[in-house]
Amino acid sequence: MNRCGVFDSGIGGVSVAKEILKAKIFDEIIYYGDTARVPYGNKNESTIIRYSLEAAEFLKNFDIDFLVVACNSASSVAIDELKKELSIPVIGVIEAGVEAIKQEDKNKNILLIGTRRTISSQKYQTLLKNEGFNNIISIPTPLFVPLVEEGIVEGEIVDRVFELYFSEIEKEKIDIVILGCTHYPFLEKSFKKHFPNAKLIHSGQAIVSLINKRFDIPTKKNCKIKFFASDNIEEFRIKAKEWIK
Amino acid sequence: MNRCGVFDSGIGGVSVAKEILKAKIFDEIIYYGDTARVPYGNKNESTIIRYSLEAAEFLKNFDIDFLVVACNSASSVAIDELKKELSIPVIGVIEAGVEAIKQEDKNKNILLIGTRRTISSQKYQTLLKNEGFNNIISIPTPLFVPLVEEGIVEGEIVDRVFELYFSEIEKEKIDIVILGCTHYPFLEKSFKKHFPNAKLIHSGQAIVSLINKRFDIPTKKNCKIKFFASDNIEEFRIKAKEWIK
Repeated sequence: MNRCGVFDSGIGGVSVAKEILKAKIFDEIIYYGDTARVPYGNKNESTIIRYSLEAAEFLKNFDIDFLVVACNSASSVAIDELKKELSIPVIGVIEAGVEAIKQEDKNKNILLIGTRRTISSQKYQTLLKNEGFNNIISIPTPLFVPLVEEGIVEGEIVDRVFELYFSEIEKEKIDIVILGCTHYPFLEKSFKKHFPNAKLIHSGQAIVSLINKRFDIPTKKNCKIKFFASDNIEEFRIKAKEWIK
Repeated sequence: MNRCGVFDSGIGGVSVAKEILKAKIFDEIIYYGDTARVPYGNKNESTIIRYSLEAAEFLKNFDIDFLVVACNSASSVAIDELKKELSIPVIGVIEAGVEAIKQEDKNKNILLIGTRRTISSQKYQTLLKNEGFNNIISIPTPLFVPLVEEGIVEGEIVDRVFELYFSEIEKEKIDIVILGCTHYPFLEKSFKKHFPNAKLIHSGQAIVSLINKRFDIPTKKNCKIKFFASDNIEEFRIKAKEWIK
């Protein structure tokens, strides 16, 4: 039995779990959302590290063989500590996102968006620069999270928010948009509309590609998922089951 | 020395502390923002009660004579427990808000807005009905908080969000708008524009009136304020000092 733990500060990481589930590379996925302390994006580094280690501790109870950090804020500041503390493979959405575009032309124009914490941590930018990319624009876009949480993923309000954040960039010149927050894939339609020439980098798909590349895990017949949360468990399960469809 | 503790899940309660500071009814205000676990509005009742008791515990270290719960979510679910646990007067924004309109004509049309938790707790609605008010419309408006946090308090995006939430009500018929979240006073201009005939009930002003009415506290010559937070303390102090101006 191959079991994968996936954690996020809240429900956003379900977009990642959904892709892992579809890929059937594990028999079971245990998802943990730290809803008692969501969001991580506006919290301090040491606090995020502490919360991440506690989340990993919770998941270890399920004998997981693999840990996916489906939270960009946690991946940007806590991934090294998690790798140090755990004896199983740990994989984060940031390294997966960078891996997904590694083979692209280094002159391509990359737009990186995420929470304030993810952007200011410079984790993505450093990894991208190490790969040779130089044309990187990074913009924190914190309003997208509450919009997705409210189910507002297209239409006038979303368009205005796109204008607010991206009025100063030439949108048609962007080749790659890295969706650096697990909530953002739910806005895919709007991203395609505003960035018609860009390839969208989705954390969930990037994680699956990275797992397939690095670990030779045979496809399973079935894959199940169980949801846990640190607060509002029932409400969380209902929403998660809806989002994973 | 009269010392007042004020707590909120984050920075919103600064709109309340600001009014208490201006009123000079205490020598010192100790403000505590539970930024490590903000926001409370999407958390479970028992979790909010636990967090609120911990916040009160922290403030007790400063020998406070008075506690103001400047958080609508905490006031809606934890006020009874706080009153039971503390031997000093405890006052919440919800009772203050209701007290502020007690003398109004009972047929007036009231619009109550707040976080999902505040609205679903029915605390405001129950107190208003007990006072004889019947024409109450209550709407959760969660997007206002991130907008204020981002400093977006008027303009097109805000107008669209007003349309989203209030398209089905006759705005000119609203007599009273209860701003049931401490972030909302920062949107005052937009509320005045969209609800031209309404009196706005602001938690901070309501708290000051209630303290003056219930407790005979002589005005002080000066009042100081100190800010504490459970996370990102320096960042919080900078923002709080800006907001309190």
